[in-house]
Amino acid sequence: MKIMITGFDPFGGEAVNPAYEAIRLLPDEIGGAQIVKMEVPTVFGKAGEVLKAGIREHQPDAVICVGQAGGRSGMSVEKVAINFQDARIADNEGNQPIDQVIEADGQTAYFATVPVKAMVANMRANGIPAFVSYTAGTFVCNELMYALLYLLDRSYPHIRGGFIHVPFAMEQTVDKPNGTPAMQLSAIAKGLEYSILAVIENQEDISLAMGTTH
Amino acid sequence: MKIMITGFDPFGGEAVNPAYEAIRLLPDEIGGAQIVKMEVPTVFGKAGEVLKAGIREHQPDAVICVGQAGGRSGMSVEKVAINFQDARIADNEGNQPIDQVIEADGQTAYFATVPVKAMVANMRANGIPAFVSYTAGTFVCNELMYALLYLLDRSYPHIRGGFIHVPFAMEQTVDKPNGTPAMQLSAIAKGLEYSILAVIENQEDISLAMGTTH
Amino acid sequence: MKIMITGFDPFGGEAVNPAYEAIRLLPDEIGGAQIVKMEVPTVFGKAGEVLKAGIREHQPDAVICVGQAGGRSGMSVEKVAINFQDARIADNEGNQPIDQVIEADGQTAYFATVPVKAMVANMRANGIPAFVSYTAGTFVCNELMYALLYLLDRSYPHIRGGFIHVPFAMEQTVDKPNGTPAMQLSAIAKGLEYSILAVIENQEDISLAMGTTH
Amino acid sequence: MKIMITGFDPFGGEAVNPAYEAIRLLPDEIGGAQIVKMEVPTVFGKAGEVLKAGIREHQPDAVICVGQAGGRSGMSVEKVAINFQDARIADNEGNQPIDQVIEADGQTAYFATVPVKAMVANMRANGIPAFVSYTAGTFVCNELMYALLYLLDRSYPHIRGGFIHVPFAMEQTVDKPNGTPAMQLSAIAKGLEYSILAVIENQEDISLAMGTTH
Repeated sequence: MKIMITGFDPFGGEAVNPAYEAIRLLPDEIGGAQIVKMEVPTVFGKAGEVLKAGIREHQPDAVICVGQAGGRSGMSVEKVAINFQDARIADNEGNQPIDQVIEADGQTAYFATVPVKAMVANMRANGIPAFVSYTAGTFVCNELMYALLYLLDRSYPHIRGGFIHVPFAMEQTVDKPNGTPAMQLSAIAKGLEYSILAVIENQEDISLAMGTTH
Repeated sequence: MKIMITGFDPFGGEAVNPAYEAIRLLPDEIGGAQIVKMEVPTVFGKAGEVLKAGIREHQPDAVICVGQAGGRSGMSVEKVAINFQDARIADNEGNQPIDQVIEADGQTAYFATVPVKAMVANMRANGIPAFVSYTAGTFVCNELMYALLYLLDRSYPHIRGGFIHVPFAMEQTVDKPNGTPAMQLSAIAKGLEYSILAVIENQEDISLAMGTTH
Repeated sequence: MKIMITGFDPFGGEAVNPAYEAIRLLPDEIGGAQIVKMEVPTVFGKAGEVLKAGIREHQPDAVICVGQAGGRSGMSVEKVAINFQDARIADNEGNQPIDQVIEADGQTAYFATVPVKAMVANMRANGIPAFVSYTAGTFVCNELMYALLYLLDRSYPHIRGGFIHVPFAMEQTVDKPNGTPAMQLSAIAKGLEYSILAVIENQEDISLAMGTTH
Repeated sequence: MKIMITGFDPFGGEAVNPAYEAIRLLPDEIGGAQIVKMEVPTVFGKAGEVLKAGIREHQPDAVICVGQAGGRSGMSVEKVAINFQDARIADNEGNQPIDQVIEADGQTAYFATVPVKAMVANMRANGIPAFVSYTAGTFVCNELMYALLYLLDRSYPHIRGGFIHVPFAMEQTVDKPNGTPAMQLSAIAKGLEYSILAVIENQEDISLAMGTTH
């Protein structure tokens, strides 16, 4: 089994992006599955293109994209991506789409096809604060999740797809307002690992449910 | 140099108290100073008695008491203890003083005599979210800090005293409302270590300022 | 023009529901439009049935459902309803669906067809804190919004539909944890009024966009 | 009976200060007591001087100073003022004292002499979110409260003194981050009124306790 996991490069004035920093801490094999790590640009459109090329090249069984959701207190596994982009700040190449659809012929929304609740449960069982989230926002994170699920729906129905938002890494909040929650990178990485394990453990049920046999 | 550091036992329904758990992770020597660790009961009056006996026995150069402030997002070094106890919940022996003074002949308040700002600055410089706090509450934490500073003021003017509140440990927040901030125990322990280093580094200035020569 | 506005009855142990209490404060005419007020039960399935009967009876030009989102600090106009119900607590008749779709043949999600941004902008321009929300949760609020948009999509494409979440009314937070945000009922009602005015002002553009002439 | 109530002028980039705006909404008589309203400058030192002149002129029975504590969710009645000023931002005349005492010969702290708990209880009984606060910060608010209590302690022991922090007024938060709590000015004013009533109702007990007969 092969699992691809992606993280964004830094944006919004931050020096690091805890998403990719945490991914770098992951081992190359988790629960018997090969882990393929990939950094994607925080740029509307391009993130999805890089992801698409990576999926074509690596042909993973599941894809988990990871992004930063500064201000959240725990790991949040996203349930839904919406066909809508509306950027409060510019991305890393200056794009700032307002009130636009992502794919004119796409569904209004797609649900994640990874086992969202099992991922949350496995993190919590291992002491990592985690919850299901029902909004990935309207910035590049949601756009990438939408691009992923749109792509899988059309071209790779046997590949599971999902998105995890991670809090600020602790170091990022030193100069932020008192009260801003954070997690240590090592805990974020652990959370990703427990999430991946849940994907692996639930893989068989998913395959059966889908009638696939890979 | 010898630094005593105390932590409370668990209270309020929590299985652990991150204060003492973090202290247990500290080495026995930090920056050349000997570290004396002590657990104190979360009981009005008794916490101070245990502390007093410990100070008499160990004759430290500085005392830092540590308690849990669930809901805070970073390490908070307390500036002031007030002569007031008012318990929203009972302590571990069922005491719940309401609207009472701690020491009838004590000052309205005492300021910490450890270098509060330097402790915060050293934690922040090392990536640990930290801030100065101007209230230690009205529960056993404030009462212990007050008891410490009252004692030092009267009997041990050459000993520095202070109090650090630590956030929930990450594991404690798994079942708490989404949004509850936390830190990993290892980060809390690191914060305590950087705080102690700041006390040591500022020891000479303090001694000079006080005209003491120990 | 006729605008129907609905509010839930109290739930979750609250004595009142600020949604319906605020609606009761609204005048019967706003900006030349007739306002039809309706209370709906906080019960999965039944809320939608009551709404459906009301729409059939009153044939409004737009429908705005209103619910309480305790913990939010301002008025939030929902952008999207998802085909998913997952109840953390039971509704007022003891139903607690977990991990279920709302309509087997419905879309994964529907976007509101009222002018969400204009409603937010008009509230803000008049001093009412407001923002666009991208999740109406997974309780009866989201279910009612979904039921509304599903119904309009199939049977009443000329009727605009949307959902507004309101904060706790101030009185509700007196015994809640310090820090819980709230608004006064009179301000919530004002917010609803400015939202309705934005719907009215944007009605023509919407009609043109849809090719309808009512 | 005569009660003086003061509010600061705007600071920190805000166009209004809800403290004084709310005071302006108060009637000139509350519960049979004459209300003397006074605006004070948000300037270290000067605020206290203006207050001192006002007390000399009006000879009130009680003085309540009011300030803004942006970010708090309810009315907070301050218990204690500390002999410490440490300004994160400059005051309205550019002063920014760091790490300084307010009065070299003053106590480390003074407790409010108004009935703090009764004031909170009366607000809550009337639907206004309120709580006791144990820190008035280290800016001009704390400095004025300290100056007031220092003055009363030395020169007017028969006059009660206290301080109330109020949240942002609702209009102030429209452009602030989502989640910033606020209250309407009318509710803030109501809160002040219920606080004043509690001061009046508890006046006799206080006088007896002090052995005064005015």
